[in-house]
Amino acid sequence: MISRYARPEMQELWGDAHRYETWLAVELAACEAMEELGEVPRGTAAAVRAQVRLDPARIVEIEAGTQHDVIAFLTQVEESAGEPARWLHLGMTSSDVLDAALAILLREAVDLIDKQVDALLAALRLRAEEHRLTPMIGRTHGIHAEPTTLGLVFARWHAELARARRRLRWARSGIAVGKIAGAVGTYAHLAPAIEERALAKLGLRPETVPTQVVGRDRHAELACALALLGAAVEQIALTIRHWQRTEVGEAEEPFGKGQKGSSAMPHKKNPIQSENLTGLARLLRAYAGAALEDVALWHERDISHSSVERVIFPDATTLAHFMLVRLERLIEGLVLYPERMLQNLERSGGLVFSEGVLLLLVKKGLPRQRAYEIVQKNALAAHAGRGRFRDLLARDPEVAGLLAPTELDQAFDLNHHLRNVDAIFARAFAEEHD
Amino acid sequence: MISRYARPEMQELWGDAHRYETWLAVELAACEAMEELGEVPRGTAAAVRAQVRLDPARIVEIEAGTQHDVIAFLTQVEESAGEPARWLHLGMTSSDVLDAALAILLREAVDLIDKQVDALLAALRLRAEEHRLTPMIGRTHGIHAEPTTLGLVFARWHAELARARRRLRWARSGIAVGKIAGAVGTYAHLAPAIEERALAKLGLRPETVPTQVVGRDRHAELACALALLGAAVEQIALTIRHWQRTEVGEAEEPFGKGQKGSSAMPHKKNPIQSENLTGLARLLRAYAGAALEDVALWHERDISHSSVERVIFPDATTLAHFMLVRLERLIEGLVLYPERMLQNLERSGGLVFSEGVLLLLVKKGLPRQRAYEIVQKNALAAHAGRGRFRDLLARDPEVAGLLAPTELDQAFDLNHHLRNVDAIFARAFAEEHD
Amino acid sequence: MISRYARPEMQELWGDAHRYETWLAVELAACEAMEELGEVPRGTAAAVRAQVRLDPARIVEIEAGTQHDVIAFLTQVEESAGEPARWLHLGMTSSDVLDAALAILLREAVDLIDKQVDALLAALRLRAEEHRLTPMIGRTHGIHAEPTTLGLVFARWHAELARARRRLRWARSGIAVGKIAGAVGTYAHLAPAIEERALAKLGLRPETVPTQVVGRDRHAELACALALLGAAVEQIALTIRHWQRTEVGEAEEPFGKGQKGSSAMPHKKNPIQSENLTGLARLLRAYAGAALEDVALWHERDISHSSVERVIFPDATTLAHFMLVRLERLIEGLVLYPERMLQNLERSGGLVFSEGVLLLLVKKGLPRQRAYEIVQKNALAAHAGRGRFRDLLARDPEVAGLLAPTELDQAFDLNHHLRNVDAIFARAFAEEHD
Amino acid sequence: MISRYARPEMQELWGDAHRYETWLAVELAACEAMEELGEVPRGTAAAVRAQVRLDPARIVEIEAGTQHDVIAFLTQVEESAGEPARWLHLGMTSSDVLDAALAILLREAVDLIDKQVDALLAALRLRAEEHRLTPMIGRTHGIHAEPTTLGLVFARWHAELARARRRLRWARSGIAVGKIAGAVGTYAHLAPAIEERALAKLGLRPETVPTQVVGRDRHAELACALALLGAAVEQIALTIRHWQRTEVGEAEEPFGKGQKGSSAMPHKKNPIQSENLTGLARLLRAYAGAALEDVALWHERDISHSSVERVIFPDATTLAHFMLVRLERLIEGLVLYPERMLQNLERSGGLVFSEGVLLLLVKKGLPRQRAYEIVQKNALAAHAGRGRFRDLLARDPEVAGLLAPTELDQAFDLNHHLRNVDAIFARAFAEEHD
Repeated sequence: MISRYARPEMQELWGDAHRYETWLAVELAACEAMEELGEVPRGTAAAVRAQVRLDPARIVEIEAGTQHDVIAFLTQVEESAGEPARWLHLGMTSSDVLDAALAILLREAVDLIDKQVDALLAALRLRAEEHRLTPMIGRTHGIHAEPTTLGLVFARWHAELARARRRLRWARSGIAVGKIAGAVGTYAHLAPAIEERALAKLGLRPETVPTQVVGRDRHAELACALALLGAAVEQIALTIRHWQRTEVGEAEEPFGKGQKGSSAMPHKKNPIQSENLTGLARLLRAYAGAALEDVALWHERDISHSSVERVIFPDATTLAHFMLVRLERLIEGLVLYPERMLQNLERSGGLVFSEGVLLLLVKKGLPRQRAYEIVQKNALAAHAGRGRFRDLLARDPEVAGLLAPTELDQAFDLNHHLRNVDAIFARAFAEEHD
Repeated sequence: MISRYARPEMQELWGDAHRYETWLAVELAACEAMEELGEVPRGTAAAVRAQVRLDPARIVEIEAGTQHDVIAFLTQVEESAGEPARWLHLGMTSSDVLDAALAILLREAVDLIDKQVDALLAALRLRAEEHRLTPMIGRTHGIHAEPTTLGLVFARWHAELARARRRLRWARSGIAVGKIAGAVGTYAHLAPAIEERALAKLGLRPETVPTQVVGRDRHAELACALALLGAAVEQIALTIRHWQRTEVGEAEEPFGKGQKGSSAMPHKKNPIQSENLTGLARLLRAYAGAALEDVALWHERDISHSSVERVIFPDATTLAHFMLVRLERLIEGLVLYPERMLQNLERSGGLVFSEGVLLLLVKKGLPRQRAYEIVQKNALAAHAGRGRFRDLLARDPEVAGLLAPTELDQAFDLNHHLRNVDAIFARAFAEEHD
Repeated sequence: MISRYARPEMQELWGDAHRYETWLAVELAACEAMEELGEVPRGTAAAVRAQVRLDPARIVEIEAGTQHDVIAFLTQVEESAGEPARWLHLGMTSSDVLDAALAILLREAVDLIDKQVDALLAALRLRAEEHRLTPMIGRTHGIHAEPTTLGLVFARWHAELARARRRLRWARSGIAVGKIAGAVGTYAHLAPAIEERALAKLGLRPETVPTQVVGRDRHAELACALALLGAAVEQIALTIRHWQRTEVGEAEEPFGKGQKGSSAMPHKKNPIQSENLTGLARLLRAYAGAALEDVALWHERDISHSSVERVIFPDATTLAHFMLVRLERLIEGLVLYPERMLQNLERSGGLVFSEGVLLLLVKKGLPRQRAYEIVQKNALAAHAGRGRFRDLLARDPEVAGLLAPTELDQAFDLNHHLRNVDAIFARAFAEEHD
Repeated sequence: MISRYARPEMQELWGDAHRYETWLAVELAACEAMEELGEVPRGTAAAVRAQVRLDPARIVEIEAGTQHDVIAFLTQVEESAGEPARWLHLGMTSSDVLDAALAILLREAVDLIDKQVDALLAALRLRAEEHRLTPMIGRTHGIHAEPTTLGLVFARWHAELARARRRLRWARSGIAVGKIAGAVGTYAHLAPAIEERALAKLGLRPETVPTQVVGRDRHAELACALALLGAAVEQIALTIRHWQRTEVGEAEEPFGKGQKGSSAMPHKKNPIQSENLTGLARLLRAYAGAALEDVALWHERDISHSSVERVIFPDATTLAHFMLVRLERLIEGLVLYPERMLQNLERSGGLVFSEGVLLLLVKKGLPRQRAYEIVQKNALAAHAGRGRFRDLLARDPEVAGLLAPTELDQAFDLNHHLRNVDAIFARAFAEEHD
């Protein structure tokens, strides 16, 4: 991933040095397991660990000849750690190392992402509580519907992110699997006991029925979870963009000192971070598509998935992490305009309370369809500018015959509309929810 | 979905009649909840239920005028059930009905699929046990690698399908959510207590923080789970196609009496069912892509997701179900050729045992790289037709100097290779695995 | 495709009856070509044509036994047309019939779509001319930028649709290809001369190098062209949705008499058609993804593409056609509010003219960065409500020192801003453009 | 793109230095156009060109403050080139620079790709001619069908690549478009004449109706063309993988001296390059999906497409180029085994000639369905090992009653089967084909 969209911790995680370290960790864990089971002389792993100096540049150089990355790695380890290193990789195949290492790297990447989801959840909760009862017009189809509160929007995002995190954690569990089972997964020159011990040292479980590799459905599940996380981010970003549009004006992205909105138009403050996040969510969707094509492999494995994984897993996890960091700051710094929200809410002159009127008329005994016609007629008149909705209703003989002015008042009461907000909040921030 | 790829139970599930029934079930559950809470006269739901005659054709006719499906439905219910029906839908919005109903339909569809996964798992297990120790060459990159067993392949598919089912069940739980919370999810003319009671009657949970609709990440998760299920099917279908190719000849799809393989070539028996399944898996991937684009909606909802859902959820669930039915029969009827498997295994003259030799040489003290070179030299000679691999090794002075003939024998022993198969089976069919 | 999103002409095009007719047309064209070349008795095709009665139900019945659609078709043709029919299909393979027939059906479908693009282009041009100089605020990032005209927006959509049509026509040409070349494309029991004559009768060209089938890249290109067409529709639909949102209010979808916007909120008029189109564009993208996976087939063909094509080509073309019909009516009936556009344009108190001021200051000799700072300072002040932008500028000593009031006036002149609209129109509606 | 999959020329093309150079080229072209039209003092561009020293590191440093890349770039240009540089960008908006520059970079990238397609086409043609008449069994569904030639396969790939190149060139033309039309595309502070002159200097055409940007359908078309190119590569790679599988053995990827196929199995030679290419094709499909989502933007532009484009266009073009380089070498070095092809062809004992027998029987007057049954009966018997197909036929009384032995011979004649290969070649390598 281009450095513009990568945080240093992710760049390091996916860098050559850390990859080779992780391969070494797998080889040593397997070696220790073999020592414990008497397959390899005691002290081998310790001796290698003491002597080895990983040299990424030298490994790349060797690989140019062998065209095989794990063999190049082992050769450099042997060059550097000497005789004991020849016991490494005994009976193992490259994928024994690569898949366990990929599982570890993916788990580390998911953990970085998970930590950022936590931070974002905290930021969302704070803003939700802050604006629990800040009235805002609810919009469906982009059209004013009925009042809601700003806090409810933040609370909803919190719930959506929490669901995305749950899926990410399922995928994290699904991916925390390795196999040290040899060329086709039969332990021909190994034993399940070695695998079990080695993987346990690495915090991994054995693949249920391995081939040369672990199942790629596990990786595809993770890619889907990241795409779903991206969609949760996109949902938030899309809303901020809507709030900031000139005619709405209910929120603005924080605007740094010295920042320039446009090279041509000095007055502009654009929601560019949210737009950026919207685009990045598309990339996460795209990567999931490629991962899903990687699942079905030939027989006991073909390596077509490898080139895809080299690109999409560093890219997708790096992007997801970047997006969450960016969004957390955005949520924390988001400039909100409650007065403008109130102005917008009131601009329809009360049309947004039409359903309450409809229901009162039904309760008074009017057939629903008749009530609907009466309310719609007055609503369209108000919408066309022929008076305020409430006044038109009060003057409508059919309405006036059924509803006293105080009854009409209640239908137009904002507090009445928002009386259940606390109940929703209680649910949103309960310990356990899905 | 075209009827070619639809089973009757899915066609009925997604038909107009059952959809309207489900809408009615939601309206009546909500009505009963309101009765219990004193919002609606006792007995209303019962009276409607007793009188109503759903008439899909009439609903479509009304919809042509209103261009609103739920209003059309309610109008026909009122036409048919009379006065008590005017209490239905009180304070509700269309999506209160539609989303709960969609949740119910999706759950029913997933249940049909889940049942078929069960049947397929049983079929796979049977064939796995049957061929637990039937030797087969394991292939990586399409090239002979080391021996495995046919049973292990079935056991692996069992494990993969079980993982796919787990995701499907998570998604089923995620989708089992409704909202009866009004126009923007604030319960302005309703109450959380009504929703809770109504949804409980339908076996659903309330959305944590609703808008006009429940979150579309839930539906996208299901679409991803179906795409992952499709990939598990694709994995199996792809392997069967490989097994059946002329040069391999290890299995054949069951070929019905009277079936014709080709209009031009009477000798042909083609793996057309597996090819068909391979294609259908692509469709499930495609639908997941569309579902992921549906998540981010405007404000308290826009209805762009609706047209997508009308197409992809009937299509994706119907296809997934069809695929599983087809695959189960295919697995049950699959004609297997163990003798051919053995012939294929032996065609390399023992090259597939090269790793065992390599390891023996390493254990005898040769540096790994040197051992590799010796084995590769003899392997390439055998591959080029200059003798059987074992004979060449026995004649190689460096090998002969280190390994006695009986030691060499062990490396070429098939039973030794397959000694851990039982352990893998134990793991594969343990009660709990992921 | 569900009938809700299908027009009758497309339903008929993709119906069983028309498919079998098209197969028959291909068989008869091949038969006539063979007659001309002396391979088949003269008059055979004519005799078959005179006698045959296609019976879709009977074909389906036969297929249940043979599990092969073309053989079932040929059997029914022979049942109905008698002895001469046994000359049909001589030396041909099923795909000779199926691919030529698919090419014909796709070409017919594209022609229906193309005709609708024409109608839509005409509607867009009319509205463009009508509102050539209707001022409207141009928005970037959803934020007011500089003035444009409503007519330019329609003109742009016209240009985008014209580009989409160009790609569709390229794809139409690419798909207008068949092969009558036998089982693996070698004309083993046929001759290129037969193919050439037969395809020419059907308006098709021969595949350059056929296998059993024509190349699936042709079909994928069409699916991509449809996805790109869908994106052009989506672009328009998205804009209409923005225009209709309550705070913007610059346009409204036509609202039928008796139509109901919401079951709960009688005042609502929602842009549901545009939302619907937005969703359908996602489906066209999804189908393109599946089509791209269909290209790489095994050796001289595998049939995995077939199940995909049975679903996506009827679905994608039917949807594209439906979308264009819907959009054309929407464009024709779109209710536009030029006064509201002007109000919106003016709501920033002239901030949208800031770039003109910046440029004047630069021309007067200020360094660009300094000019930018001055204009931005006043713009942010105006945006914060501390006065109208023009007044603040006039009072800024640094500005006043450089610009006379009449010079400032020019920067705020709308006509000056729009002086090049005619030039763009000339380009947009020139005979030839890309 | 990771350097593993990037060639140096593409890395340089997409590097910071070349991007800034391209931006400068656009600014200077616009400046010269303004000079010619009297908007800017004569000699300005020349003066800037003489003085400017682009400093990517400094630009990045400035951008950290402004958070706007083009402003940062202009600031550094002004720092370096002094006073004349303040005339640059007059009346322009960032996208005037960025979109023209992106068009230039994409065109350069497509040209690199196009050149590689040429090289690959030449390699394919050579191998096609070399093996024009090398017999090979044609396979459908992975099952032996009828004979074809190896040369025909190469010729087909040539035709498919040529089609992919045609689409790429269309997309190249579609993308060769810029706009120098200001903030919303109205030339408010510019003039179409400036744009026309400036773009002509850069080899670009003006966008028909610009907004702030050029239409993103152009970029999506390119991404689709790259995905289609990728699918053509995938088709070839998939076939090579099939040819190399142990049981088929008809071809092998070139295997470098010192290369190691497997860390565990010294005998293995795996088609890893073809597998790698198969995976990379998935990535090109994924990028196309993201590009299609970029088309529909808000009003006169939102910037959501930008983050996507920063990633996918360098990545997709770099990958496509890499794939072609790799594939060309693979085709040139591909080791082919004609004797094995012949062995495979003959392994069915003539079953692959069954259609010829069928047709002879039909010509002798048997009803097609009866002939089919006879041939299928003998074919299935031969397939089941009850004799060679030809012998079984000769012994079948119904066949023997109709066909003399010499007639049967003809049906089994390979040369007769391949008599039309030259005609196909003539078509494949004709100057003009689609």
